[in-house]
Amino acid sequence: MPEDLADVLHQLIVTTRILANEEVLDAFGHVSVRHPRDRNRYFIPRHRAPELAEASDLIEMNLDSEPVRPTQFRLYSERVIHGEIYKARPDVNAVVHHHAHAVLPYAISGRELVPVFHLGAVIGSKVPFWDQRDEFGDTNMLVVKPEEGASLARALGGNWMVLMRRHGATVAGADLRQLAFRTVFGCHNAKLQSQAMAHGGRVDQLSPGEQKITEAGQLGPTPIERAWDYWVRHVEKAGLMPAKVAAKRKAAPAKASRAKSTSSKRKAKKR
Amino acid sequence: MPEDLADVLHQLIVTTRILANEEVLDAFGHVSVRHPRDRNRYFIPRHRAPELAEASDLIEMNLDSEPVRPTQFRLYSERVIHGEIYKARPDVNAVVHHHAHAVLPYAISGRELVPVFHLGAVIGSKVPFWDQRDEFGDTNMLVVKPEEGASLARALGGNWMVLMRRHGATVAGADLRQLAFRTVFGCHNAKLQSQAMAHGGRVDQLSPGEQKITEAGQLGPTPIERAWDYWVRHVEKAGLMPAKVAAKRKAAPAKASRAKSTSSKRKAKKR
Amino acid sequence: MPEDLADVLHQLIVTTRILANEEVLDAFGHVSVRHPRDRNRYFIPRHRAPELAEASDLIEMNLDSEPVRPTQFRLYSERVIHGEIYKARPDVNAVVHHHAHAVLPYAISGRELVPVFHLGAVIGSKVPFWDQRDEFGDTNMLVVKPEEGASLARALGGNWMVLMRRHGATVAGADLRQLAFRTVFGCHNAKLQSQAMAHGGRVDQLSPGEQKITEAGQLGPTPIERAWDYWVRHVEKAGLMPAKVAAKRKAAPAKASRAKSTSSKRKAKKR
Amino acid sequence: MPEDLADVLHQLIVTTRILANEEVLDAFGHVSVRHPRDRNRYFIPRHRAPELAEASDLIEMNLDSEPVRPTQFRLYSERVIHGEIYKARPDVNAVVHHHAHAVLPYAISGRELVPVFHLGAVIGSKVPFWDQRDEFGDTNMLVVKPEEGASLARALGGNWMVLMRRHGATVAGADLRQLAFRTVFGCHNAKLQSQAMAHGGRVDQLSPGEQKITEAGQLGPTPIERAWDYWVRHVEKAGLMPAKVAAKRKAAPAKASRAKSTSSKRKAKKR
Repeated sequence: MPEDLADVLHQLIVTTRILANEEVLDAFGHVSVRHPRDRNRYFIPRHRAPELAEASDLIEMNLDSEPVRPTQFRLYSERVIHGEIYKARPDVNAVVHHHAHAVLPYAISGRELVPVFHLGAVIGSKVPFWDQRDEFGDTNMLVVKPEEGASLARALGGNWMVLMRRHGATVAGADLRQLAFRTVFGCHNAKLQSQAMAHGGRVDQLSPGEQKITEAGQLGPTPIERAWDYWVRHVEKAGLMPAKVAAKRKAAPAKASRAKSTSSKRKAKKR
Repeated sequence: MPEDLADVLHQLIVTTRILANEEVLDAFGHVSVRHPRDRNRYFIPRHRAPELAEASDLIEMNLDSEPVRPTQFRLYSERVIHGEIYKARPDVNAVVHHHAHAVLPYAISGRELVPVFHLGAVIGSKVPFWDQRDEFGDTNMLVVKPEEGASLARALGGNWMVLMRRHGATVAGADLRQLAFRTVFGCHNAKLQSQAMAHGGRVDQLSPGEQKITEAGQLGPTPIERAWDYWVRHVEKAGLMPAKVAAKRKAAPAKASRAKSTSSKRKAKKR
Repeated sequence: MPEDLADVLHQLIVTTRILANEEVLDAFGHVSVRHPRDRNRYFIPRHRAPELAEASDLIEMNLDSEPVRPTQFRLYSERVIHGEIYKARPDVNAVVHHHAHAVLPYAISGRELVPVFHLGAVIGSKVPFWDQRDEFGDTNMLVVKPEEGASLARALGGNWMVLMRRHGATVAGADLRQLAFRTVFGCHNAKLQSQAMAHGGRVDQLSPGEQKITEAGQLGPTPIERAWDYWVRHVEKAGLMPAKVAAKRKAAPAKASRAKSTSSKRKAKKR
Repeated sequence: MPEDLADVLHQLIVTTRILANEEVLDAFGHVSVRHPRDRNRYFIPRHRAPELAEASDLIEMNLDSEPVRPTQFRLYSERVIHGEIYKARPDVNAVVHHHAHAVLPYAISGRELVPVFHLGAVIGSKVPFWDQRDEFGDTNMLVVKPEEGASLARALGGNWMVLMRRHGATVAGADLRQLAFRTVFGCHNAKLQSQAMAHGGRVDQLSPGEQKITEAGQLGPTPIERAWDYWVRHVEKAGLMPAKVAAKRKAAPAKASRAKSTSSKRKAKKR
């Protein structure tokens, strides 16, 4: 993950646009990133459709999910999902909560989501379920109270993805690029498992050994960078690349040379 | 809902474009809105594909679905659906009749459509069926006679969505934005329920308590505005934003400042 | 159908583009129209992907599917499908042979395709199957010999659509617009029936009386014109509207005023 | 296949863009071609998403999949798939490894993929399975060692497509255009077979005689050229046509006249 704060926040917006463009996020859902230099804070957009969020919409939160500075912006009611996971999991630096149609059938049917192809290994060895109703009874089905967020974080445990019954999923990452990779291929895995189940017979899955070795391999820098560059190109083609970047680049060319994103470099060269 | 008539009619066109862009409407189907100041009248486009309808195509109808002023335009043969529901339901101010592929499988299989995820709560606690054949025998399957419309309105009863066997669905709203929200997420709920059923086992659904609390929450202004802004952005990107608005704005800037649509404001600023 | 030959040929190209844009045709398949003034001839493009065919690619054929004038163009090997149906069915003036993914599952599973919603009534009361293997044994699975085309025409009989086992479908129309309407909504019906069957229970279908009355109603000029205008708009947005039209219009404005296509009129006004 | 090296390499990039545009390749997968004048060498892009690969990214390999000239580019870890198949199969001159969602359900469910419609005949009379686990136990599921590539090539045997359990597929061709044709229609066949199986009953398939005769027919120059021109048009419309071509054409018009691609000719004429 970049160390420069502006670069991190830009990457947060790019990640969000990727997940919107890859049919993970729609009008709802949200992505956050832990502050690169203060582990007790994180950034998340103000309340709006994630695809529409700009860098100027990002709010700095403490881990109780309260804004560090007063703001007049409306906030996501479910931001405790992010704060409580950052509290419980020091190894997590990026979180997305989504309602992707690929995974929702599992949240409804209760069928276990398992890695069925090599890229699906990145969902981890287990994807637990969480049912808000178990602990909190009939609610508005949103994770708004700190204790609801903490309960979800407990269900996640040491895993990287949790299915929320009749609601959606929450995915965690060591950084934003890993998060994007796990989330998109988690959705592909879910779709493919559903289609294989429709064949009517037994559904194969990765052996525990395959899952472990393959997860480690796919989460290395090479596959993630390759997929990231591909998704960025598609975000650019969809006209979704955050406009602010170009402005920043023009104003501060020295900064651009530090950017980790090869796709941004490519773009910069073209101009 | 806006109180200004021009704003209401513009919102009707925008709602229609949203529902076309979100794959609810195709060549067929229609959306109407009750007159904001005369509860015995409503507006609906002349006979044409809803995506193609402009503000200049809107016809003012009385609740018997007859044009208030003589018109040479061809009218939708099924407009009694709208008039009869406005008669029966004073709390309804907007109606859409559609044949979305997401819900038609239920109209064919007869499987009950139930809320299976939080956003699906907005279809209400029950989605009744109506079969034109029960009362009227073999017909051309269009709801053209006042008594056919009245029969459909009775089947709808106090609910917000009714499935029409071998035909489609009709959805009602307290206003146009609520109508768009209920219709789109009703379609998402239907798709997800079909996919969860294909997993072959039990399909979970919201408890009655969850449905009630969640419906109330999701129909508040915040979720609806967030989704509306997102859909409007996509309508703009698809080149479907009604052209007339810009013209009106230029001619009457004072009016623009009263517009409720944040997306329209955004657009106005850009120009 | 227009009476002017140039208008008919233009409409043939537009119909083809509509069917390509509506996911009926891909690299393969073809559309033809009977000569408006000589019932023993028909027009069909030279051998190329139908979406790419221009008016200048159209070849005039006799009903034995031989070119009326010598041509150096390669011809569709399966053109006898068209000629033999025109021979057998004086009421047919337009034919399409396609491999749409919506209907192919029926050609593979052998499940009967039945009208399951009102617009599906236009497939007719029966969609027969034809298996080339029954009469001709192992072949290259193309309908290339006159006797193969005649066999298919016999299987079609007095119906309007025939499913070809392990191959595709052939659809007939009284004119090109009716053909487009029947073909597109036949595909929608097929998709919806598949989805309803996946619900696992009984699948409803139109009663014989409903089918007959509804077919007659939907094949009237009003629904067909409404759908046509909608599809033309989408063809225009996809950049697929045949370029030649504009040129012709400019050269001969008098002719344009005779055109039946409202969408063409609309286009003409805009320029 | 063109004999001129530059033309072959351009066709490799075009084939790759076609397969990306037709939803066969995404961030992963790769296409290669044997050197047209040195049967012990082949070309494959450096490590990057195939859709993003340019002619300048192509690396010349020997059949042990080592670069003929030193390179600082990162290489595909799975390039032995290509080298080992070229070693084992003198009749193969083009290879693609992919994870298309159309075929992965078979790699997961273990259901046999069979030709179910005429165009599907090109997958050949048998599509064998290969499970890396059988011979190599728990691995990172990538085909990286020469012996893993050789094992896969043995599983392919004399066939043209092999399904890799929990991973994807590899397809071979006598040339690049045949490869594209077999790969795309192999995916269509897979989708259609899945949909036909979902109808719940028996699934028809081509008889051995039909498969053999039809495969021979479809792999002739006529169907392949027709489909190629169609896919190229769609690649052009998607803005994916490799930019280098135009430059080369302008610099060397004499070469352009030798090009086999009719679509390129068409493009050249328009300019």
